Amino acid sequence: MPATMQALAFLGIGKAGVIEKPIPKPGPTDAIVRTTSALICTSDVHTVRGAIPVPEGRALGHEAVGVVHDLGAAVTGFEAGERVAVGALTPCFHCGPCQRGFSTQCQGMLGGYKFTTQRDGNMAEYFLVNNAAANLARIPADLPDEKAVYATDMLSTGFGGAENAQLRLGESVAIFAQGPVGLSATIGCRLLGAGLIIAVEGRPERQELARRFGADVVVDPAAGDVVNQILDLTGGVGVDGAIEALGHPQTFEDCIRVTKPGGRISNIGYHGENPAPLQIPLEPFGLGMSDKKILTSLCPGGSDRLERIFTLMRSGRVDPTPMTTHEFGFDEIERAFSMMETKEDGVIKPLIRFA
Amino acid sequence: MPATMQALAFLGIGKAGVIEKPIPKPGPTDAIVRTTSALICTSDVHTVRGAIPVPEGRALGHEAVGVVHDLGAAVTGFEAGERVAVGALTPCFHCGPCQRGFSTQCQGMLGGYKFTTQRDGNMAEYFLVNNAAANLARIPADLPDEKAVYATDMLSTGFGGAENAQLRLGESVAIFAQGPVGLSATIGCRLLGAGLIIAVEGRPERQELARRFGADVVVDPAAGDVVNQILDLTGGVGVDGAIEALGHPQTFEDCIRVTKPGGRISNIGYHGENPAPLQIPLEPFGLGMSDKKILTSLCPGGSDRLERIFTLMRSGRVDPTPMTTHEFGFDEIERAFSMMETKEDGVIKPLIRFA
Amino acid sequence: MPATMQALAFLGIGKAGVIEKPIPKPGPTDAIVRTTSALICTSDVHTVRGAIPVPEGRALGHEAVGVVHDLGAAVTGFEAGERVAVGALTPCFHCGPCQRGFSTQCQGMLGGYKFTTQRDGNMAEYFLVNNAAANLARIPADLPDEKAVYATDMLSTGFGGAENAQLRLGESVAIFAQGPVGLSATIGCRLLGAGLIIAVEGRPERQELARRFGADVVVDPAAGDVVNQILDLTGGVGVDGAIEALGHPQTFEDCIRVTKPGGRISNIGYHGENPAPLQIPLEPFGLGMSDKKILTSLCPGGSDRLERIFTLMRSGRVDPTPMTTHEFGFDEIERAFSMMETKEDGVIKPLIRFA
Amino acid sequence: MPATMQALAFLGIGKAGVIEKPIPKPGPTDAIVRTTSALICTSDVHTVRGAIPVPEGRALGHEAVGVVHDLGAAVTGFEAGERVAVGALTPCFHCGPCQRGFSTQCQGMLGGYKFTTQRDGNMAEYFLVNNAAANLARIPADLPDEKAVYATDMLSTGFGGAENAQLRLGESVAIFAQGPVGLSATIGCRLLGAGLIIAVEGRPERQELARRFGADVVVDPAAGDVVNQILDLTGGVGVDGAIEALGHPQTFEDCIRVTKPGGRISNIGYHGENPAPLQIPLEPFGLGMSDKKILTSLCPGGSDRLERIFTLMRSGRVDPTPMTTHEFGFDEIERAFSMMETKEDGVIKPLIRFA
Repeated sequence: MPATMQALAFLGIGKAGVIEKPIPKPGPTDAIVRTTSALICTSDVHTVRGAIPVPEGRALGHEAVGVVHDLGAAVTGFEAGERVAVGALTPCFHCGPCQRGFSTQCQGMLGGYKFTTQRDGNMAEYFLVNNAAANLARIPADLPDEKAVYATDMLSTGFGGAENAQLRLGESVAIFAQGPVGLSATIGCRLLGAGLIIAVEGRPERQELARRFGADVVVDPAAGDVVNQILDLTGGVGVDGAIEALGHPQTFEDCIRVTKPGGRISNIGYHGENPAPLQIPLEPFGLGMSDKKILTSLCPGGSDRLERIFTLMRSGRVDPTPMTTHEFGFDEIERAFSMMETKEDGVIKPLIRFA
Repeated sequence: MPATMQALAFLGIGKAGVIEKPIPKPGPTDAIVRTTSALICTSDVHTVRGAIPVPEGRALGHEAVGVVHDLGAAVTGFEAGERVAVGALTPCFHCGPCQRGFSTQCQGMLGGYKFTTQRDGNMAEYFLVNNAAANLARIPADLPDEKAVYATDMLSTGFGGAENAQLRLGESVAIFAQGPVGLSATIGCRLLGAGLIIAVEGRPERQELARRFGADVVVDPAAGDVVNQILDLTGGVGVDGAIEALGHPQTFEDCIRVTKPGGRISNIGYHGENPAPLQIPLEPFGLGMSDKKILTSLCPGGSDRLERIFTLMRSGRVDPTPMTTHEFGFDEIERAFSMMETKEDGVIKPLIRFA
Repeated sequence: MPATMQALAFLGIGKAGVIEKPIPKPGPTDAIVRTTSALICTSDVHTVRGAIPVPEGRALGHEAVGVVHDLGAAVTGFEAGERVAVGALTPCFHCGPCQRGFSTQCQGMLGGYKFTTQRDGNMAEYFLVNNAAANLARIPADLPDEKAVYATDMLSTGFGGAENAQLRLGESVAIFAQGPVGLSATIGCRLLGAGLIIAVEGRPERQELARRFGADVVVDPAAGDVVNQILDLTGGVGVDGAIEALGHPQTFEDCIRVTKPGGRISNIGYHGENPAPLQIPLEPFGLGMSDKKILTSLCPGGSDRLERIFTLMRSGRVDPTPMTTHEFGFDEIERAFSMMETKEDGVIKPLIRFA
Repeated sequence: MPATMQALAFLGIGKAGVIEKPIPKPGPTDAIVRTTSALICTSDVHTVRGAIPVPEGRALGHEAVGVVHDLGAAVTGFEAGERVAVGALTPCFHCGPCQRGFSTQCQGMLGGYKFTTQRDGNMAEYFLVNNAAANLARIPADLPDEKAVYATDMLSTGFGGAENAQLRLGESVAIFAQGPVGLSATIGCRLLGAGLIIAVEGRPERQELARRFGADVVVDPAAGDVVNQILDLTGGVGVDGAIEALGHPQTFEDCIRVTKPGGRISNIGYHGENPAPLQIPLEPFGLGMSDKKILTSLCPGGSDRLERIFTLMRSGRVDPTPMTTHEFGFDEIERAFSMMETKEDGVIKPLIRFA
């Protein structure tokens, strides 16, 4: 049994590279998972750029599946060798925010997000999972790693954005940006019974995926003002829900402009790149009395949600793998990571296979 | 302009036939619609059998689309000649129950159901629509009558049953019976993101439609105890939601037996055939402390819901027309009605075309 | 029967005065009410200042009770002479937004607000009520006008703000500003089971009323930074809900700063005085991922809500009359209105008695 | 440090008595609490009568507060000596049902209820608390034991019943039976903004407490048919919510009969005494289409809920201590328990003080 492992780590602002680290040991309620497949997330690119203060040598990554390697003394119901997925967020489910239903805010603002920010991430050969009883989700035998791994962050986050749009059957929704989270929101809106799905996206390959995943119309920002295009598509009335999946002040504002009175603006974009406050234009907000709602969320954690997504994959209703534009061995992880930084070659999600 | 019309009317317990009636005149907030297509509903069969006290000569029918013929003085926003659909229920939207969100219970228990019970139904060449501003829904030009007419009752009722199952993405549901309402609930559960849809049905042609509309598994009562079959399919745990779409005490009880703790039992079956109280078995109900919920509903009315269903039809997500097993001219309506009584020839829904 | 009446009308930017107008005639679904008591609202002061474009001669006012004077031909269930209250908003309950549950947005943004903006208001001896079947609420015999009139706007609006705070039993809430709407929100939070109510207010007489209506603590802006005071009161954690009842960008921003992750910001303040966009500070908003929600509302209309408020008044749970700081005859209305403009003499709400 | 303790234990059907047991040792995530005060619950009387299979020697009790005595190695955030309350249910918060929001159904039907049914209860000098991080609630210094202890079951259960009545501000509710759980539901309905609270109860001392806790009217079964009395009180329309707090088939049925269309029937009564199925009468259930809902619940667990109830106690909004009709030392526990069996001397809740 080896004592050390390889991990892609933060090595100072702007630098990431593979280093050797000790294989973690489980506390009583933890599990150690041996990684088999992982996806690289743009959040890690943000982290390496300095968005979140992280000590040097901290392993990156939070989208991975693997096999149970070791279990804490108090963990029951799992055995070494079982295939498992672990959400990008791993809440304790015991603290006040968790009990109130905000497990993403475990023990404080955004505190459910523990990989990399609070401990080593899982772009590593092995990783520790806190509160394993709640955070390990068994992967059904007929579900391959390359599908299951999408449940850990992309689909869960995108579906959360779709859920917060609070659509009634047949209502309309506009989804701003069709990166992997926006595409997942598109899949989610389709699943939740949207009648009209408008995807906003300029890159052809993402436009095509948006259509494939359920968008009825794609609005291209190059074709003119996005707000006007969406109002035109809805007879001037606007949409019932708007999902911000980009993380830009203008897009956030556009979401307010394209929603009907009573509409929901669901934010899943990360607004850490631009320090200026978000702005709410008064007129489309009805001077604060429009019955519009602004809702925000972060990838919900826990095995139950993962298992529900697995059910959707097994019944054939959800297949996110067309988002996997590239595939690498873990020995190529540095190249894969750099590709995610540059977004070259039409990359959406690079899949990493561990030996 | 003719002064009279033909209508299929109740002619005494067990008897229905076409009679001549005056074309109705609108009050200030009413509309008169000239019927173009209609579907026969088993509810009318119940009515003719005496389930609801109705005067002789009262027109039957509540699933119809047509063309605006005349409008009351206070109705704005519509013009004669426009194609419209009208829900089976036509609430006032003004009384206490309507304002509280229970428009199906307009002015009292089940009071939103006005066709036949409170005034002439619409299996007639012309029909009156109360509170036209809320109850007329414009049919989009690209949507044919034979699709649109399903929104008036079947889909709206079935979707209501699916909504009351309160499924989270990927959860499981069992739908008891796959008549037109049960099939519509199957479509609805698929639209709302169910992960596993179990349809309970014995007739092969309905089983096939259930699969086509989204059921993952069909449980055949002939193959053994339905409750056990469903528990087996769910690893002994049961389903998150169960929909009663038959209207039978045993089925209602089975719904309680197959749901998990915390599960929802959604009733859309009509329990007027059997006067005995429904029964709740104590053990699967957790002695009244299982966190299970029993929810009931009746076809919601109003143009907004119809328009949302039209959107789903136009985007190609919903096509109920495979339920139309037979088609007749209005001159054959008596034969069509008798077929609905006997359920001969595998009939599901007979479509009636008006000249 | 007189043909004309007196009304307080808009007479050009900055000017309001009593003029003679014809008594309105009802359309088929309308009612005419003879006013008995009314309250002046600061919204009318905004209107006179030019906040909303209104033709000269338009009657002001939207908080009134009275007696049924005349009824349209299609209105049933009411008789001339009955005491009635009418909400500040009088939605049609028939259009799309109304059917979707956003009756305040009747037929378009803020469109449920018809008095003064779309037709004569009710600071007049008689006024017209559209869709009377839904908008007339009978006043119980044991409920005096001077109480009932508070249901028409202040309590309904304030309670709406409290409802949007979505408090669970025992949760904490901060209410920014204790004018009549803020005080009503305080009453509402108390009614809805808040555990800790923090009222933010600087004027002593309003502070005292806030305590009387249920505030546990009053935070005085003169005593230091409001955000810090509230964080101190909650052990640094913040409140579960924050209600903006002032209509100021800084207060709106403070609401975001004082809420916990997962908290609700409920806006009932009118933001029409300042044209700059509202701002959302990123850090307390969790970069858009805090699970915080921003909700907005406007006084819900309809008789059902008024009747529920009457029930609370009759059982002694709600008595808003301590807000009535001044009382005038309608012949003194111009003086009363000018007092509302200057807010002199500690005025909160002036009650107007009609002869 | 003693190794053994005294506990009131089940000693065979119909028998309960004090025995000596080892003081429990904590596992890694457990806490051991030294009991200071407890309340006897009628559930334990049911258990001794044989309602739940329990091994002889198993300690009874589930309503207790105390002081942290020992902590498992993985428990952080608490220290020995702190005053704590523990809910009657102690869910894991990690399993599927817990993650889905049904923590009372932890790991299976009613599985959150662990005291006595799965391990020793807390009518003992010391008791073990599983998943201590979620289940220990610190008692504020200014809150005495004799108040705090009511949060552990009575108030939490009663408030749950009130929450499930889903009342809008000012709506009406009928609460069937005013034992300690029904009285707590009365307090809960008052807290949640009910406009009219009708309590059904025959015993004068409980009627008086009901009024004191917020009931507007008390209906006495001795004065005639309860259903008719409630319909008379509501103008024949019925109530918006009905709470079953007795656990009797007739009362359950009455709840269905007294609710309006769209009404909620909230069950918190224990239906284990009578093996016959509960019955739903068809006519007041609208033949299954009345929009009525039947909801069920069991005392929710977790520290967050306890802390919210403490907040309500500290602000003076809730004081359950008038329910404490008797007080005993732990050395008198057998007499107290027998009193709870006979319900002699007008007993509602007997408080037990530990040395």
